Amino acid sequence: MIDVIVVGGGPAGVSAAIYLKRFKLDVTIIMKDYGTLGTTDHIENYYGFPEPISGKELFNNGIKQAKRFEIPVLTEEVLSIDYFDTFTVKTNKGSYESKIVLLATGASRATLRVKGFSEYTGKGISFCAVCDGFLYRGKKIGVIGNGDFMLEELEVLENFSQDITVFTNNMPLEKPLEHVKVVDNKIIEIKGNDVVSSVLTENSETPIDVLFMAMGTPSAADFALRMGAFINKNDIVVDEQFMTNIPGLFAAGDCIGGGWLQIVKAADDGSRAAFAINKYLRKKPM
Amino acid sequence: MIDVIVVGGGPAGVSAAIYLKRFKLDVTIIMKDYGTLGTTDHIENYYGFPEPISGKELFNNGIKQAKRFEIPVLTEEVLSIDYFDTFTVKTNKGSYESKIVLLATGASRATLRVKGFSEYTGKGISFCAVCDGFLYRGKKIGVIGNGDFMLEELEVLENFSQDITVFTNNMPLEKPLEHVKVVDNKIIEIKGNDVVSSVLTENSETPIDVLFMAMGTPSAADFALRMGAFINKNDIVVDEQFMTNIPGLFAAGDCIGGGWLQIVKAADDGSRAAFAINKYLRKKPM
Repeated sequence: MIDVIVVGGGPAGVSAAIYLKRFKLDVTIIMKDYGTLGTTDHIENYYGFPEPISGKELFNNGIKQAKRFEIPVLTEEVLSIDYFDTFTVKTNKGSYESKIVLLATGASRATLRVKGFSEYTGKGISFCAVCDGFLYRGKKIGVIGNGDFMLEELEVLENFSQDITVFTNNMPLEKPLEHVKVVDNKIIEIKGNDVVSSVLTENSETPIDVLFMAMGTPSAADFALRMGAFINKNDIVVDEQFMTNIPGLFAAGDCIGGGWLQIVKAADDGSRAAFAINKYLRKKPM
Repeated sequence: MIDVIVVGGGPAGVSAAIYLKRFKLDVTIIMKDYGTLGTTDHIENYYGFPEPISGKELFNNGIKQAKRFEIPVLTEEVLSIDYFDTFTVKTNKGSYESKIVLLATGASRATLRVKGFSEYTGKGISFCAVCDGFLYRGKKIGVIGNGDFMLEELEVLENFSQDITVFTNNMPLEKPLEHVKVVDNKIIEIKGNDVVSSVLTENSETPIDVLFMAMGTPSAADFALRMGAFINKNDIVVDEQFMTNIPGLFAAGDCIGGGWLQIVKAADDGSRAAFAINKYLRKKPM
């Protein structure tokens, strides 16, 4: 039986795996793809890299780093995780038993099923106000969302522009908004040429220079949810030791939310989760 | 006036500075040397580096990264920080005003590896002339140190007593000293009963009532202490927003302790402190 299966090969997962290995635990990473990190072109704010690095490059660095530690990295899609004293992780290629599962799958971001959304993702549609907001100083900024995530992004974006429109896509605003325009009807299409230029809703068309997605994120928490772990919106609820309410089920990185979805935060989460897992395993005879 | 002066050029300081710059704040880093990171040969567990990297290399990467963001990096020794609505940071080369100071100097506070040092710390061994000097009016005062930091402390202590002995612990005095006795050989033991009573060196034993540590450069905890910030052992006490009890004085990284002195934790601290500082500055009109 494996000590720890880490689901996810991004900053949280790899950072955790390396620390776990350092603690002399038997750890395996199961990952599907580059995740959110792979969609990022240009990372400048992760400490230690003098020149910008692409998300894919950083991701690959991480995988190489894990392999140098002789940590098995399986590229398989996790289909289900069952819990009964120990964990059974079923993938599209096999089934694995472990004492501990660490979910580090990132926050699979909500997408909008409207015309133009995929086309302009990365071309004026952004998923991170802190990362990209500064590029749009004084510009027309659009934000899609209706809850806390949107409010967090808004707070960041208000540093850069006074011209902000929130698109709720026909969802009710969870809290009233001041100082910004609100378009509360359904989004029909994201328009643009090379880059985004406007949002067409049922009642209006609003010119914008950039559109930030701040809608909730579903499926990252699904596994946890199926095992009966507590979820707060789309974030897996963990205690200070990064453990969910399921004994032995841990989570780290963007999938536990916290509003600060930064690479360095995910990597730090991972290291701390590893520390906690080690403590947990040493205490509990299995 | 500078928005934020970051004291320290390691992972916490640089990570903070980069995020602060991204928030469009005017930030300057003041640093002295490689700090603890420079003493580390072989870093394998910081996410994103497939091959081991030396502490110095990582440190230099960080400085290059900061410079690419056009953040001024001053290699100067901070001697004192004063607070009166705004901050005045005095170095060996100049004086700088800022709205915010972020202490990110790492954990190193000078200790003496001699018998009695740990035992009498807090029992006549003090780390802050401004804090404790007045308690020893007219008493025999000892000061350990040989450079600018010692001179700073001496200036304070001369208000309280004429009977001052400087112990250089076999280090050369950086500047000649007047009006005080100097014992320039190696310290063997700090003696005392309930409290400190004398300093034994290779050549002599000098009776003292109190001993002030002013070796090397002041640590973050030393600055914080002098401004009236709360310290727990050697760790600066901060709230969840990384702010000390002094409005506008923040701290991040190893200097706030927490028992998990990892690079990734320091870098993460820095990014979060930047987030909090930005929030704080936007709320508070200055």
